[in-house]
Amino acid sequence: MIQGIGAAAGVAIGRAFVLPAWEMDIQDRQLETIDLGREFDRLQEGIVTSKHEIEEIRNEIQQMVGKEESTIFDAHLAILEDPVFMSEIRGIIERQYKAAEVAVKEAIDHFVTMFDLLDDEYMKERALDIKDVGNRLLKHLLGTPEVTLPKNNEPYILVAHELSPSQLVHLNPSHVLGMVTMVGGKSSHSAIMARALGIPLVSGFENLLDSMIQTGDLLVLDGSSGALYINPASEIIERHTLVAEKQKRRKEQLQLLAAEDAVTLDGVHFHLASNISSYKEFELAVKHGAEGVGLFRTEFIYMDRIELPTEDEQYEIYRRVVEHAGLHPVVIRTLDIGGDKQLEYFPLPEEENPFLGYRAIRISLDRHDLFKTQLTAILRASAHGSVKIMYPMITSVEEIRSANRILAEAMSELDKRGIPYDKEIPVGIMIEVPAAAASAELLAEECDFFSIGTNDLVQYVLAVDRMNEKIAHLYRPFHPAVLRMLKMTVDAAQSHHIQVSVCGEMAGDERSLPIWSYLGVNHLSMSPQALLRVKHSILNVSAEEEADVGRSCFACRTATEIEELLSSRTHFEN
Amino acid sequence: MIQGIGAAAGVAIGRAFVLPAWEMDIQDRQLETIDLGREFDRLQEGIVTSKHEIEEIRNEIQQMVGKEESTIFDAHLAILEDPVFMSEIRGIIERQYKAAEVAVKEAIDHFVTMFDLLDDEYMKERALDIKDVGNRLLKHLLGTPEVTLPKNNEPYILVAHELSPSQLVHLNPSHVLGMVTMVGGKSSHSAIMARALGIPLVSGFENLLDSMIQTGDLLVLDGSSGALYINPASEIIERHTLVAEKQKRRKEQLQLLAAEDAVTLDGVHFHLASNISSYKEFELAVKHGAEGVGLFRTEFIYMDRIELPTEDEQYEIYRRVVEHAGLHPVVIRTLDIGGDKQLEYFPLPEEENPFLGYRAIRISLDRHDLFKTQLTAILRASAHGSVKIMYPMITSVEEIRSANRILAEAMSELDKRGIPYDKEIPVGIMIEVPAAAASAELLAEECDFFSIGTNDLVQYVLAVDRMNEKIAHLYRPFHPAVLRMLKMTVDAAQSHHIQVSVCGEMAGDERSLPIWSYLGVNHLSMSPQALLRVKHSILNVSAEEEADVGRSCFACRTATEIEELLSSRTHFEN
Repeated sequence: MIQGIGAAAGVAIGRAFVLPAWEMDIQDRQLETIDLGREFDRLQEGIVTSKHEIEEIRNEIQQMVGKEESTIFDAHLAILEDPVFMSEIRGIIERQYKAAEVAVKEAIDHFVTMFDLLDDEYMKERALDIKDVGNRLLKHLLGTPEVTLPKNNEPYILVAHELSPSQLVHLNPSHVLGMVTMVGGKSSHSAIMARALGIPLVSGFENLLDSMIQTGDLLVLDGSSGALYINPASEIIERHTLVAEKQKRRKEQLQLLAAEDAVTLDGVHFHLASNISSYKEFELAVKHGAEGVGLFRTEFIYMDRIELPTEDEQYEIYRRVVEHAGLHPVVIRTLDIGGDKQLEYFPLPEEENPFLGYRAIRISLDRHDLFKTQLTAILRASAHGSVKIMYPMITSVEEIRSANRILAEAMSELDKRGIPYDKEIPVGIMIEVPAAAASAELLAEECDFFSIGTNDLVQYVLAVDRMNEKIAHLYRPFHPAVLRMLKMTVDAAQSHHIQVSVCGEMAGDERSLPIWSYLGVNHLSMSPQALLRVKHSILNVSAEEEADVGRSCFACRTATEIEELLSSRTHFEN
Repeated sequence: MIQGIGAAAGVAIGRAFVLPAWEMDIQDRQLETIDLGREFDRLQEGIVTSKHEIEEIRNEIQQMVGKEESTIFDAHLAILEDPVFMSEIRGIIERQYKAAEVAVKEAIDHFVTMFDLLDDEYMKERALDIKDVGNRLLKHLLGTPEVTLPKNNEPYILVAHELSPSQLVHLNPSHVLGMVTMVGGKSSHSAIMARALGIPLVSGFENLLDSMIQTGDLLVLDGSSGALYINPASEIIERHTLVAEKQKRRKEQLQLLAAEDAVTLDGVHFHLASNISSYKEFELAVKHGAEGVGLFRTEFIYMDRIELPTEDEQYEIYRRVVEHAGLHPVVIRTLDIGGDKQLEYFPLPEEENPFLGYRAIRISLDRHDLFKTQLTAILRASAHGSVKIMYPMITSVEEIRSANRILAEAMSELDKRGIPYDKEIPVGIMIEVPAAAASAELLAEECDFFSIGTNDLVQYVLAVDRMNEKIAHLYRPFHPAVLRMLKMTVDAAQSHHIQVSVCGEMAGDERSLPIWSYLGVNHLSMSPQALLRVKHSILNVSAEEEADVGRSCFACRTATEIEELLSSRTHFEN
């Protein structure tokens, strides 16, 4: 047994397939006949093919993962359009009469060396990106075949030195039992994607030889503990087979709950809606019993393209979701770009602290055209079912009023066009900035509902960027200050008789049930993956008992005390 | 009259001195005798001289401005040590037999062109830095003389296309009546420095010809409105002369208040302490009647050097301030680096959102050695007067406890060494993260006092980086949510009978007096420049009336309403 890092939970047992590292083998080919035109054409063709491929991968990732992970490919596309990198390549071809692939190789080496030498994380990351893109371009120039995965349909455990997002996206999750990588950790891109795909992953064996595992070896891995067994004894295999079977059965049992209502033992009904980014994700959510959409992240409609989506395009997407939701409400959040979400065709300023910058409603109120188009599309979709509009990143009463003015314009234009929409469409706001929680009683008078975005709220309340590994341990959703901000928000909503729901990750964490029970929140919206797990917990608790525990949480002095109290109550082992 | 941007307030009337743009005139000198050794020596010498000069400028700026402005020079020093830039220069000398200055010029051009081409603000800024540093290096290689300023001791108005921080720092503020720059705005480095130096500045005439103003022209400028008059009619001169004289008289009147107590008309005593970064700044504060130090920003002790300050070095600095403070308390805040404050010899990780990152107490608790040394030095200084320790960026009870454990270690080591210190030294915390305000009632039980850092608190509560020009208008200290967070903090302090003071910029803004009066806060700490202005306001108001206004502020629904209410009460025109 060797100990690695458990990067994506789950047990896997199967034969190893070791992905060979792809080595470049390029002869320094100087051109004999000076056919520069041909080399430029080859280069151009390689660029176009690479771009096309990157765009495809990006779209697949968006569909499959439905998260910010796809934005890395926007950076890759930008490199293929980078004037400095491209003119370096062209210069080598032109001045040194070298073949396109040699020029690409030399340009990559030049930039990677240069950026690597700079003692600057930002530049090092750019170097990695250039390497990844350059290798892709080289692949097309050289015509190197894709790595061949086993064709015999037998599921396998993938072993690689490192897995790039581009490699991962080509995997068929039903054929990959698990994955082992030498480099990487819990928060690497591949780990995030492995978790989204539900494939167990252990990594962090950097100090071991790649050659320790051969294709065909029998592997057993535990993605929770990080344990990896190579050709283990039969008792290890049996023990883990039992665990794997148990996990599978649990999954099947959960699926049986999809059609049931989420009601506690003492009869309190929770409404479980889903956070989605696309129609495809909503289909999965419905399979898992989602009662509508609590958070439709519309920015992904803007991402998968080269220009702003038109009103009609948006309308079609919203309408499709709304119709599929039937009688259940669909809460559509207006565009939330900025922060870590960028649009290729809509350049945002480079910011020192993007999370404290130009994003979400701040952009929408600055760009009426873009905002009104979206509001109009949402309004049109409201004619087909139950739609609610939600503004992100609200910090003040003025912002709600400004947004509503633009909404009123959109309505009166639709009136003129004679297009139907829900004239009583509810308008709510995300509570995700401390200012919103602290002045919730003022904001409650200006809107129809609150939805608490715990991810950002926790980040801002604690001043912790949770993507920053150096301080990620300080990101504590169960911090006493966070609970107090939640209470302020819920109290304000209740005293103004408006609905309050939770749509951040805390909603999908069953440990939070005592908090919601104590506060009296029973509208939760979460990822499709979390729905059945949370429902199972709800079916097995008494809301009154949960509320008692929640009350005790509010008497705790530290996040650790609260976490201990809540963890001791977990009803469902993972 | 031409309209520019008022970048530093004040009226100036005087003759123009136009700073000529320094043009490089370098012959592409290929070496005749191949004396590479000599060119390398010259290069090395130029680098050493440049470094020395940059370090001097940095130190001067720290002394004069006492702010973050000096950190730009750390970046400049880093460039002179950058392996890529330097190997490029050496490569050109070595391979192309070019003189050192030619190699430097070509390397600058190469990097600046390359970085400029990248459509990336971060890289463009690096390009500017490389240009500035490269030009300085060239200057030393070529022996070009410094720009000569008028020697006849007659004060002048400085006119330049652009002023770099390096140029500004060489100005004698008593000879420069005012400044005009073609480029720049309110938040440029030169504007920040001009305000710190108290020199009126108008800028933003980029579209006008530099040649419009000749040395010797009579200029009148108003740094508040941004108006600039060139050789104006006599009535313009007279009118502005009156304003300038009024400003001067006001300044003199204020100085008379230095020795008076800050007591309202109805007898409420406010304690006005100062925020300082150095002994020099404290001297100024004492001249302006500061009752001790409410915030000693110790990070500047760490900045002006190439390695960590020793315990003895720190002790000497603290002791000097403490002794000069006499009976007044000196609140020493432990190291607050990270965010936008970096130490050259203490590399911090490159972060996506440094304000939400690894900074302040998070670093101290991670680096016990460094933290204990500082605490020991502070403890030793406590034997010489009234010292208090303050931890920055606290978000939880655990952090206070961890810090106190290290403090206890420092104490017991001093006991062993037989060195005296104040065994009852008060220990307090900054309230600057929303988490601290929201859980103030828990934190109050763990420390002896609170000091509210409004600058960061406002940033975090509103999720607005105020240095980000794109959203700076959303930075509203008088936002209803901010007032509520202040109230939570003050209420918690009062119910636990611990002192609460305010040390952010709101403390130095006399518009806030109604807020402090209503909340019952009467300890304020502010920049030396603000002390007399605020004292003047306090002397002219009734605390009871102010409290009434403050109460009305809490009933307002928007920052605009509150600002209007408070601005209508301003007692002292600027």
